[in-house]
Amino acid sequence: MSTPSALSDTHVGALPQPYLLFLGDTTVPGYAKTAYGVRDWAGDLCVGEWACGATVSTGLPVLTPREAKERGAKGLVIGVANAGGFIPDSWVDALVEALHAGLDIISGMHMRLAEIPRLAAAAELLGRRLIDVRTPPRNIPIASGRKRAGKRLLTVGTDCALGKKYTALALARAFAVRGVAVDFRATGQTGILIAGSGIPMDATIADFSAGAAEMLSPAAHAEHWDVIEGQGSLFHPAYAGVSLALLHGSQPDVFVVCHQPGRTHVLGHPEFVLPTIEQVIELTIQLGQRTNPAIRCAGISLNTGHLDADAAQELLTRTATQLGMPAADPMRGGESFDRLAQAALDEPAGA
Amino acid sequence: MSTPSALSDTHVGALPQPYLLFLGDTTVPGYAKTAYGVRDWAGDLCVGEWACGATVSTGLPVLTPREAKERGAKGLVIGVANAGGFIPDSWVDALVEALHAGLDIISGMHMRLAEIPRLAAAAELLGRRLIDVRTPPRNIPIASGRKRAGKRLLTVGTDCALGKKYTALALARAFAVRGVAVDFRATGQTGILIAGSGIPMDATIADFSAGAAEMLSPAAHAEHWDVIEGQGSLFHPAYAGVSLALLHGSQPDVFVVCHQPGRTHVLGHPEFVLPTIEQVIELTIQLGQRTNPAIRCAGISLNTGHLDADAAQELLTRTATQLGMPAADPMRGGESFDRLAQAALDEPAGA
Repeated sequence: MSTPSALSDTHVGALPQPYLLFLGDTTVPGYAKTAYGVRDWAGDLCVGEWACGATVSTGLPVLTPREAKERGAKGLVIGVANAGGFIPDSWVDALVEALHAGLDIISGMHMRLAEIPRLAAAAELLGRRLIDVRTPPRNIPIASGRKRAGKRLLTVGTDCALGKKYTALALARAFAVRGVAVDFRATGQTGILIAGSGIPMDATIADFSAGAAEMLSPAAHAEHWDVIEGQGSLFHPAYAGVSLALLHGSQPDVFVVCHQPGRTHVLGHPEFVLPTIEQVIELTIQLGQRTNPAIRCAGISLNTGHLDADAAQELLTRTATQLGMPAADPMRGGESFDRLAQAALDEPAGA
Repeated sequence: MSTPSALSDTHVGALPQPYLLFLGDTTVPGYAKTAYGVRDWAGDLCVGEWACGATVSTGLPVLTPREAKERGAKGLVIGVANAGGFIPDSWVDALVEALHAGLDIISGMHMRLAEIPRLAAAAELLGRRLIDVRTPPRNIPIASGRKRAGKRLLTVGTDCALGKKYTALALARAFAVRGVAVDFRATGQTGILIAGSGIPMDATIADFSAGAAEMLSPAAHAEHWDVIEGQGSLFHPAYAGVSLALLHGSQPDVFVVCHQPGRTHVLGHPEFVLPTIEQVIELTIQLGQRTNPAIRCAGISLNTGHLDADAAQELLTRTATQLGMPAADPMRGGESFDRLAQAALDEPAGA
């Protein structure tokens, strides 16, 4: 897939691009989700892949760091995770080789790159950067709450991990295809690798979280759109505070509710029943009005990967009828997704 | 004032007590608010005060660090702030002297004590602790959302800085006087100095804020009360996320709404009209029900310091009548405050 310019902004903490995707010694495809996400959404920023024993592949050309550097690569992205979120000793030789080849190293893992003495020493010696995208920028301001110029869309959800990033990326792409000036604004590690910039909302200091959301999506010209990746859920027993700070700081004009049909309880919190889509719409408007009285819901994004095409279409139609607004699966695209994107862009009747 | 045992718990990050209160070279009483707060609410944990040129005083005995140590002091508390939130060079000799006398140093300032090389070196040499109460504990868990045993009261507000800490302290004391097993749970720096423990909610990492609130107020026996110091406001454009995380993690059975009569707009955010007390009650119940379906409002705490006694009493009576629940000013105490404390303790009719 090609990547519209919407996905290569250089706002907050611009990353060295293009990338060489590093797969380590990973043998489980699920652990390479980050590499697949970057390939799918920022493919024209990836010159190739490299590994030290991995059996998984992104399908991109296999290049050594030196070959990647010759083709213009500036950063090596650690595109795999493991259960512990740490960088095993067996990867360190490869990472040091990348530094020697002239690449910076970019990681979204919990462990900080500079905690590995050999990496820290090599980066220091060679004048290369070790970039942890889970680290928020310094000097995030306290939120002002003041309305900024430009238009903003935020994806929200009934829960975590059901398509908020994917929906935002797909909508940003759909906006760009329509000739709309748009930036995808990333709030999580994979989104930041894809966008080349962003702020990891979950890692911000609580008092500054709304300020981080303001910083992420600064004032722009009146017709410009920021499409902002949502986090958590206002109904989540652990993460609702992050979601509210992101809502208040983003000041969205428009939001899209993301949901995984069939999910009945909060992931990892089986005591908590999932809210309905209607409840999410109501609460998002109620709380979002504090910083943007004109906030409105453009429609619904359903993750229908577990259904066949007919069942998915039937569910989308039923949901759209029931709620009186577009419902689409960005993975399937099609007319329903066109309607959702257009509903987000259209001023509401009477406005 | 004496201090009930409620205020000397040793739960999270227990501080070295008793204290010697340090006033630096402060000449502006407003800058000594922390020292006054600790004197007022943890007076039996303060052996004296000490300064290096201050003209303000807490009225406690003036003691050198060595004299304070002889009377049992374990920590020197920096009880003053200055405009920049930093520790001036002119205090460092005095602080080093305190370390030599055998006291740990406790600070609630933004600047970390260990950033001052002479302090860091002296503490290292002498085996003394430099404690920054703005630093949250390590290993805060992600919130589980699971209901914990024991009872909890949270003070909430229409805004910041209008009496949530003071109200919580006064209620904890009133509970203790009634023979109720109670702990005051501090969520800000002055509260932590008073309680001798606590977690600075504003400094937690956003994803862990609700978990911090759970950690702050752990499971207890069924009749035990935690009275938790609130932070921010659910209507605050910068801090609502912190307030929501604290509400969800605290799982309060009861809350008290704090308000400053006459304040019409959010402090420092003149574009934002303050919510009404009724709006705060409604939203706190609506959102708080997510982790405690039985949440209820016990009454209102008004900061009436700017009114004379008659006007204050008239306002409290009018507010109580209007809202159908007790309204009191903890600073004034009296029958209305007794009613508020009792309403918090009483099971609601029909429960």
